[in-house]
Amino acid sequence: MPANICTPLDIKFQNTTFAARKTVPFRRMSTPANIHPVFERMLRREDKEALLGQLGGVVWMTGLSGSGKSTIAIGLERALHAQGRYAVILDGDNVRSGINNNLDFSEAGRTENIRRIAEVAKLFASNGAVVICSFVSPTIAIREQARAIIGAGDFIEVFVDTPLEVCEARDVKGLYAKARRGEVKDFTGISAPFEAPPSPAIRIATADSKIEDSVQELTDQILPRLKRP
Amino acid sequence: MPANICTPLDIKFQNTTFAARKTVPFRRMSTPANIHPVFERMLRREDKEALLGQLGGVVWMTGLSGSGKSTIAIGLERALHAQGRYAVILDGDNVRSGINNNLDFSEAGRTENIRRIAEVAKLFASNGAVVICSFVSPTIAIREQARAIIGAGDFIEVFVDTPLEVCEARDVKGLYAKARRGEVKDFTGISAPFEAPPSPAIRIATADSKIEDSVQELTDQILPRLKRP
Repeated sequence: MPANICTPLDIKFQNTTFAARKTVPFRRMSTPANIHPVFERMLRREDKEALLGQLGGVVWMTGLSGSGKSTIAIGLERALHAQGRYAVILDGDNVRSGINNNLDFSEAGRTENIRRIAEVAKLFASNGAVVICSFVSPTIAIREQARAIIGAGDFIEVFVDTPLEVCEARDVKGLYAKARRGEVKDFTGISAPFEAPPSPAIRIATADSKIEDSVQELTDQILPRLKRP
Repeated sequence: MPANICTPLDIKFQNTTFAARKTVPFRRMSTPANIHPVFERMLRREDKEALLGQLGGVVWMTGLSGSGKSTIAIGLERALHAQGRYAVILDGDNVRSGINNNLDFSEAGRTENIRRIAEVAKLFASNGAVVICSFVSPTIAIREQARAIIGAGDFIEVFVDTPLEVCEARDVKGLYAKARRGEVKDFTGISAPFEAPPSPAIRIATADSKIEDSVQELTDQILPRLKRP
């Protein structure tokens, strides 16, 4: 078996630090062939992947507000694009203004927010795209919900690990100051918990790195996973 | 100006029979460049379209149950794929089981169903994909809702025009028989109205055609619209 074919063991352990050190290409269930018994069979995921020359999958970026998630996501998308890879960003900007524009920030709203994001990401991935999701997604439960919907074999958890002090010192959007003044309720890191992933597939520590280097580091880890067997 | 560049007039009249006779490529607002002021600019729709070698857009197929919508959609996807085009089908099979699995068939549920489908289609199209939506979408209002969300310049309304008698005679899923027996409530064509599009961009009459010919007819009309200027 070639080294870049994923075994069930790899899938099972994909989200452990051990597997993260290996290069595990995205691999998951193929499209069932019998959904459309009409006409000829529907194109499968593999057909789209062959057209695009890559494997689809979801890069799920989690981290505090101000950690650099979205900046790194944008950099990753550009770097993949430059390599001819088809990548798509889902983030607050295009999701909260569109598919999720009728959700509030209650607990139910946040859960449904992540559920829909994961379902949309799954649709893209099952059509061969690389989806870069950039959301605080602060709890283990919420990220596991996303993983369960997307499928473990397609879900690469990336922890953008930036200390709270650094994020608060940056405070690009002024949200930390507002949260400290009590003007923003349930702000992750200040008045609501952030549960760091205990075993992310990839961890990017940004505090002592230039952003370009963080993007390069992530790109180097993602690119081999997109390679078709 | 080259003939295949779309003028505002084309966009305005895109859904008229007049414009349908012309070859109007998909054309719409480009991605705003200022959404992400961080790092370098985010990739735009045009960048994705250049990578894929096509224009993105939405082919919205409407018609009665049993009209042949999904069969033609599958055929169109295959034909586009064979030409190296990246196309994605959204239909009841992948939508009702995923993103819309928490919706009922009440009027509110049906409206939200179409809203989410349109938002997902818009996300794909804004990433350069050709989205083939296959839904009964029985009322003018519901299709106009989809058009408004997707944007008129990206929305190609295709009416799969098959007489009720033909659909009922086929009755592939046995739904018409059930509806006649009163076992299915609000069944379009029997106990709920179908409002034919008064001026679809494309009309495919299937009653006297072989399915292969209907697919070819639609493909011939769609392909030129995907051509980048």
